[in-house]
Order: sequence, then C-alpha cells, then structure tokens
Amino acid sequence: MFTLHKTSSKTKARLGSLQTDHGQINTPVFMPVVTVGTVKAVTQDELAQKINAQIILGNTYHLYLRPGNEIMAAAGGLHSFINWSGPILTDSGGYQVFSLSENRKLTEKGARFKSHIDGSKHLFTPENVVETQRILGSDIMMMLDECPPHDNNYEEAKESMELTHRWAERGREAFLKTEPKYGYRQFQFGIVQGGMFKDLRNESAAFMNELGTEGIAIGGLSVGEPTEVMYELTDLNTNILTEKKPRYLMGVGKPANLLHCVARGIDMFDCVIPTRNARNGQIFTPAGIVNIRNAKWKNHHQPLDENFPSQLCAKYKMSYIHHLFRNDELLGLQLASLHNLIFYNGLMAEMRERIKENRFDDWYEKEAKKLNKKV
Amino acid sequence: MFTLHKTSSKTKARLGSLQTDHGQINTPVFMPVVTVGTVKAVTQDELAQKINAQIILGNTYHLYLRPGNEIMAAAGGLHSFINWSGPILTDSGGYQVFSLSENRKLTEKGARFKSHIDGSKHLFTPENVVETQRILGSDIMMMLDECPPHDNNYEEAKESMELTHRWAERGREAFLKTEPKYGYRQFQFGIVQGGMFKDLRNESAAFMNELGTEGIAIGGLSVGEPTEVMYELTDLNTNILTEKKPRYLMGVGKPANLLHCVARGIDMFDCVIPTRNARNGQIFTPAGIVNIRNAKWKNHHQPLDENFPSQLCAKYKMSYIHHLFRNDELLGLQLASLHNLIFYNGLMAEMRERIKENRFDDWYEKEAKKLNKKV
Repeated sequence: MFTLHKTSSKTKARLGSLQTDHGQINTPVFMPVVTVGTVKAVTQDELAQKINAQIILGNTYHLYLRPGNEIMAAAGGLHSFINWSGPILTDSGGYQVFSLSENRKLTEKGARFKSHIDGSKHLFTPENVVETQRILGSDIMMMLDECPPHDNNYEEAKESMELTHRWAERGREAFLKTEPKYGYRQFQFGIVQGGMFKDLRNESAAFMNELGTEGIAIGGLSVGEPTEVMYELTDLNTNILTEKKPRYLMGVGKPANLLHCVARGIDMFDCVIPTRNARNGQIFTPAGIVNIRNAKWKNHHQPLDENFPSQLCAKYKMSYIHHLFRNDELLGLQLASLHNLIFYNGLMAEMRERIKENRFDDWYEKEAKKLNKKV
Repeated sequence: MFTLHKTSSKTKARLGSLQTDHGQINTPVFMPVVTVGTVKAVTQDELAQKINAQIILGNTYHLYLRPGNEIMAAAGGLHSFINWSGPILTDSGGYQVFSLSENRKLTEKGARFKSHIDGSKHLFTPENVVETQRILGSDIMMMLDECPPHDNNYEEAKESMELTHRWAERGREAFLKTEPKYGYRQFQFGIVQGGMFKDLRNESAAFMNELGTEGIAIGGLSVGEPTEVMYELTDLNTNILTEKKPRYLMGVGKPANLLHCVARGIDMFDCVIPTRNARNGQIFTPAGIVNIRNAKWKNHHQPLDENFPSQLCAKYKMSYIHHLFRNDELLGLQLASLHNLIFYNGLMAEMRERIKENRFDDWYEKEAKKLNKKV
C-alpha cells in the first residue's frame, strides 16, 4: 500500500505514496474533514478541482448516528452517498464518543454512550466499528481506541493504553475475519496512545508496529498539552514506528504544526482548524494569519494577494470580505473555508516539492514562524 | 433604454430589452436579491455563470446602514465593492424602513427610523435616497415611496398615495439635478401605489406615466392580500401604464406568480422567495415544489432529475440532500439556493422563448398549476 520514496537528510521529513483503489495519495498529505459527509460550506467540486484534496476524512460517530448504517448501506457506502470518487479515511468514532456524547461509560467490551442528538443509547466495540466502517466503505478505517485526557496520571495512562492495545487486537481480528462490501480494498490503521509518558508512548508504538495493520496513527496528542510536548512526543514515536508504513498524526493542526510534524516524520494529517477557524474569520495566508473581522480591513479596498489561487485573496476587496463577516453572510464562510483548504493543500504540495528537491530541511522552521505571525 | 420587441396576441405578455451601461437585459427578467451585497449562499461566479443572472437587486436600506455611504464611495460603488460587472437595480430603502426598522415616523419631509442593527437614528428623504443610490452607482434606482399595509382604508390609502406622489416629484427633481459618480448612466423608476383600491391604483399609474422616469414599478402588492387580488390589480395597472417603459412588479413571487404576472404585462421581477425558501428546504422544480425535509426523501437514493442543470437535481441522491438539511449543513443551503435561482432564471428564459414563438398564451396557466403542485 505504501511506498517510501525519500527521506530528508537533516530531518525525518518523508516523501511517499499510498495506493488505494480510489486513487494514489502523495504524502505528506492533509485530509479535509467531511464530518457528516460534507466539508462545511465547501462543495465536492471545489474539494476536487480547487482544493485538489487527495483524500478526505469522514467521522464514523456522526455518520453512524445520522443517516445511520441502514441508509448508508442502501446508498452503497459513503463514496456513493456523498458523490466523492477519491479516497476516504474514516475514524473509529472513539474520539467523538469522548468529546461529544453524554454519559459515556467504558468497559472491557467497548464504549457505551448516549447520542448528542437525541439521547439514544449506543455501544461501540472494537468489532462493531469495523462493521460500521465496512458499511461506510472507507479506503482506510481506524481502530477503536481510548483517547484519555492529557492530564491523566501514569497509572491511568497505562491502563488506558493497555485497554487500547487489547481493543486493537480484537479490532484487527475483526478486520481480518470480514470482507469489504463494495468490491474495492479497505485498509486498517492502529493508533498509538500512552498519554504524555515517554515510556508508554514507546511501548505503544512498538506494539502497533507488530500488529500488522497497513498504517499507524498517533493519537492522544493535540488534546491540550503544550505544542512543544506534542512535537517531542511525535518525534519520539516516529523514532520507533516502522519506516515501511504510513504515519498519521490525528487532529493536527495549524499550518506551523504541519511543517514541524512533517519534519518529525509524519505522512498524514487531518484537522477541522482550516474550516472551523475560517468560519470565525481566521484566514491562513503565505504572509501569516489574518483576522478578517479586525476593523483594520473595513476600509482596505484591495484584494489581499492577487497571486494567491483563491477568490477570497485574489478577486475580492478585503473590505468586502470584512463586510460579509460583519453581516454573518454565508458567502463569507464559503470563501474563507475554501481559501483555507486551498492554502493547506498548497502548503502540503510545497512540502512534497521541497522534500523531493532537498529544500525542506533548511526552510521549514522559518516558514513555520512566518505562517504563525498575525498579519 | 427600453425596446418593446413583441406583445403576445391573447395575453399582455411582452418581449423586450433594456439597455444599460453594464449590459443588455432581455425581458421578462427575474432579479436575484443581493440584500447586503451577496445573494445568500451563492457566489458571484455562480450568479454569472450558472444562474445566468442578467441583473441583480441590492437593498439600499441595508447597504446604507452597513457598510455605509462613506465606505461604499471609497470602494467605488456597489459593482466594484461586490465584484459584479453586470447591471444592478437598487430599491430606495422605503420598504425596509416599514418592514425592518424600529420607531419609524413619517413626515412630509421623509421617513425617520431607528436602525434594526444598532438603534441609531436616520432619515430617508426623496432627495437623499437619490444621493445614496448615486453613491451605490446602481444602473437603475428606485424612488422613495410609502408602502402602506394591505388593510388600509380608502382615506389612509389615498393619503399615502398622495404622499408617495409628492415624494416622487421631489425624487425626480433630485435625480435630474444630480449626476452619476462613476462615468456610466443611471436610470430612475417611479412606483405606483394606491393600496387595494382600483380608482387610486388607476390614478397612481396615470401619475407615474407622466413623471418622466425611465421605467415604472408597481409597489404595494404581494403584502398579504389574496393572490387573485394581486393579479387583478396588476392587470388593472398594466392597462394604464405606458407600453413604452419597462414595468417592474416589486417583491413577486413564486414561479406560478411569475407566469401569471408576465401574462398581465410585467417585464421585471425580484423576490427573496427562491433563496429564502431554499434555506428552508423548499425546492422549485419543473414537476412542482419539493420539501426536501420530508421523510419520504430519507431513503430515496436517486437524483431528482438527471436532466436538470443544477447539481442538487442532477448529481446528488435525494437522500444526501435530505441528510444535509437534517444536519443543518451549509452545503444544503448552497445547493438549494443555487438550484432555485437556476430554476427561476430558466423559467424566465423559457417564457421569453415562448413569447417570441407565440407559444406562451396557451401554456402559462397549465404550467403555473403544475409548478405550484407539491411533489
């Protein structure tokens, strides 16, 4: 599935490719999030043609609750339901059980929870999230894991990690015993946990190396810990993770984070930041971060950057975009969401180009600093 | 400005064209509404390329309050501010003063009101709405009128109409004494009032014929009266209105209303129904009106109409569109708004074609009945 084409000389940045039955993915890659089956305020045509998204990420928790497995099966899976012909990764739903649902309760068997929509009761097990993702038909499915709070003590983090490992073994078994439903291949990724403790992180990474999955994710980071800790633990994990499999850092991050984590050997990312922050008026640009709601833009009657390939930057006066946000107009959300994803995917393309040409290692730190600046 | 190319033999349906400095408009025409400078959930590119909008309508009340005349002047007018190179019509703001603002008070001088946004106090006069529309730079500006409630008694309606007439004379004078600001022509339309009373309606139409404006609008209809009364009074007005000027029926309507009012001699329409109703899940189609929130679409895994030129109809399963609305997803609002405007403008194009080929008169009533049906 994964081919490693090159590793940088001074950093761990890698150039690779993943082969799925819905197309090839060049890594490092960023995956836009289609929570319930749509990137908020962005059309599928824009995703394919303007953002050049190579792969998108769907949330099993949301899609399991609505439209539900029965309708999803009748629709022929997620690709068919949402009209997306490229690759899709789905998470296991575990993270949302911990962040969104009510009255969740963990047992050896799985995670019981109440729907955040209607309070109905549900159980996610390592086995049934495989089944749900067979119905979704994602190209890459994730295993059920426990994502503990970042301030867990050592004992709690260890117990949680061990539960995640036992669930991982059950999940892999369920995966190997079942078949895809729609005639194309599906892959499964395990998830490294271990809280903020280095020895647990190392133990979990070694465990996941041996599990036989097609790729490995790093979970439980970017959950409230300082950014430097996230970088350090990512670095620690990629020292142990096999070079032969794709490495996916879950839920990260801002543009500067992507640069730093690619340098630490990460191949895949997903995050709602580009679209969620867009809806709050935060625009990521080559010159840094713009807050479009800031009054300084009210009388700025020029486009931000006529050379940037998004309409928000190249076509419209900043005063107009500011006006759209001040009036809570949907067009503002549309233009900003589209822009931020064009920026994210362009940044990943530039990283791939630079790794290929040995121009990444001496560039990324300065670039990260620039992209984090307030404009 | 206006050329009448043809009038139908059995109805009063007319084929015409308006020449503005931002392009020619073929009538009958529907104008999408860009309230504060954007059609809600629709991009300017979609307006031009997918909807084929020939002219759009901006609201002076909203644009005067935000961004305000100073910023609008600095931006170089509305075309430049919102990046729209086609024709624009702006209303006078009068209707919104009556429908949106607080503590409005009418005097001979004009309409005092408090902003619905921040409670600030303002005065619209027949003269200053001309000045505001000079700053907006619309191709067609409207006069300040009073739009009385449909249940006014005769005396109230008469007084209101007479005030509108006195304002119209002042407005025309202000228009003739001032110049466009941006180097292209602007036109001005008067507005027929007279409440629900036939003799007042006739008197007002005759008055507007003599005022010398480039076009004439029919106002004060579709404000709560029965549809049949609206048709009857429209018919009455177009019997008196000169054939030489374009006739614009303000704030109308549903697809069936457009058919009936074109048959009664109307050339121009505007309405928020296609976009507002789209956001509530009401989809206008050649087969009738679809409520996408209806549970019958939950398990309907086919597109609605593969031959209709909108993605909502041709590309996506109805179950997916239903799912988007159930989850309050922005993509649902986008697809439905775009679809309804494509439908509206396609309907106008079909009417023009049929008037031209003498196929309108025997068709429109049956078509109106069909389009009003619930699917």
